[in-house]
Amino acid sequence: MKAIAIDVGGTKIYNAVINEKGEIISEIEKHSTPKNLEEIKNLFKSIIAKYENEVDAAAFSTAGAVNNENTRVISSTGNLVENYRTIEFDKLSTKPVFVENDANCAAWAEHVIGASKGMPNSIMLTLGTGVGGGIILNDKLFKGKSGAAGEMHFKMYPDKRRACTCGSYDCFEAYASGTGLKKTAEEMLNNPDATTYDVIDGLKSGDKKMTEVFNKWQDDILAGIIGLANLFDPDCFVLSGSMAEFVDTDYLEKGTNFQIITMPTKVLKATTGNYAGMIGAALLALGVK
Amino acid sequence: MKAIAIDVGGTKIYNAVINEKGEIISEIEKHSTPKNLEEIKNLFKSIIAKYENEVDAAAFSTAGAVNNENTRVISSTGNLVENYRTIEFDKLSTKPVFVENDANCAAWAEHVIGASKGMPNSIMLTLGTGVGGGIILNDKLFKGKSGAAGEMHFKMYPDKRRACTCGSYDCFEAYASGTGLKKTAEEMLNNPDATTYDVIDGLKSGDKKMTEVFNKWQDDILAGIIGLANLFDPDCFVLSGSMAEFVDTDYLEKGTNFQIITMPTKVLKATTGNYAGMIGAALLALGVK
Repeated sequence: MKAIAIDVGGTKIYNAVINEKGEIISEIEKHSTPKNLEEIKNLFKSIIAKYENEVDAAAFSTAGAVNNENTRVISSTGNLVENYRTIEFDKLSTKPVFVENDANCAAWAEHVIGASKGMPNSIMLTLGTGVGGGIILNDKLFKGKSGAAGEMHFKMYPDKRRACTCGSYDCFEAYASGTGLKKTAEEMLNNPDATTYDVIDGLKSGDKKMTEVFNKWQDDILAGIIGLANLFDPDCFVLSGSMAEFVDTDYLEKGTNFQIITMPTKVLKATTGNYAGMIGAALLALGVK
Repeated sequence: MKAIAIDVGGTKIYNAVINEKGEIISEIEKHSTPKNLEEIKNLFKSIIAKYENEVDAAAFSTAGAVNNENTRVISSTGNLVENYRTIEFDKLSTKPVFVENDANCAAWAEHVIGASKGMPNSIMLTLGTGVGGGIILNDKLFKGKSGAAGEMHFKMYPDKRRACTCGSYDCFEAYASGTGLKKTAEEMLNNPDATTYDVIDGLKSGDKKMTEVFNKWQDDILAGIIGLANLFDPDCFVLSGSMAEFVDTDYLEKGTNFQIITMPTKVLKATTGNYAGMIGAALLALGVK
């Protein structure tokens, strides 16, 4: 079995054919994300048309929350085209079409062939420009009543300090993301021009102040993981995304297990790489557990 | 069908016979909680012996986290006897014995016959001296990998302001509980002798300062509910416990739905009353969904 997998991000769209083992068995194609609805629909159709005859399903890994029927995006997705929500993905192909949120797809890839393989309960945190969340409970993706569960927008402070992209304040995403690291650097260094790169560069070269900034950012991630561990009692956390390479998972795991009242958990790095979203979408579309 | 239900709290133990409709069909007996292990075991045995012949199961609603097999308490329970964890509940009766955490039992009572009836996904918060949590997902109690999921110990601040009973700092419980309200009053009024009663009394009489304290406490609860709504995307929250009568559920529901990125949720008060724990334990023991 195989699926044509399509990863839809704010700037790039990738596609590849992926088999039931999660192996990429075609070249990976890359497109700039179209800026209007008709163009993006036409791109989807042309990708699917190219591979439709040789695959069993079309599998979308997309930004935004996806409904429980895996046919539509239900949330607003600021970095995608207007009215993206109106796309009826299930009508884009004569083969079965499956759509899921990109962080959920990545969590599923890790669950089936990656770091959390063999563990029924895991929480994936994708630490990038924002923070994505994918929660697997009892070997199933946890979607909530409408499909949007697992949004990492729980508050780090109750009293409105830092605006979040979601319209509220002080969410985990606003601290644990790359954007959050920049903001923490701005505040701690009293410098509006401080960048994530400055901090990572300073961390690598042993700069004391930059290391303090990094440690504060990492301790905010730790605080969030502690809360999630007490709420979900998961077997493990899996960290992915561009910022994950810098975090110290041993530190996070020890710090978490020292403070939680549920049973010990693990903090791991993802192993399925940059195409985890496409791989997870294909595995989900093909029904691979 | 009926069960002998036993509610084990830090100061009192209650028992009653309850049928599969969740109706209490015997007198309710009340005992002081024994202070040593043998005495508490003997009390359990004597209660069960009295009703064993007429019931189908023994059902315990207890403080502490309970394993996934519903036979043992797995967490420390500071307000119960030492070595409470060693009790093999399943060996206390010749009839089937079922043990579950008291907040989980109360959540189940609400799910089957109370405020959250008909809703597959609900989160119960028991606001008392502490804060208990019971989470129901897809019509099932959510227990996590070891049985301890649903602990309301996620952080309200990441930087160690207020110690929590769990040994960590700044957990939701340390703010949203009755004890948390007292602490918030102490801090805001700069008075170490401020009490929960002072605040509630002042709230009722329209005292401006006490109303501010109460509102801060309630906004901390709101902040927590927002995070839980984004993580779990539940149909509703159910509030119970001695402090729940004072909160404004309309305010909490509107405030939550204004700030979350998942679909709207409800904030309700529990309807099954003071014996929700016993009722839920009996329903669980009897397999009533």
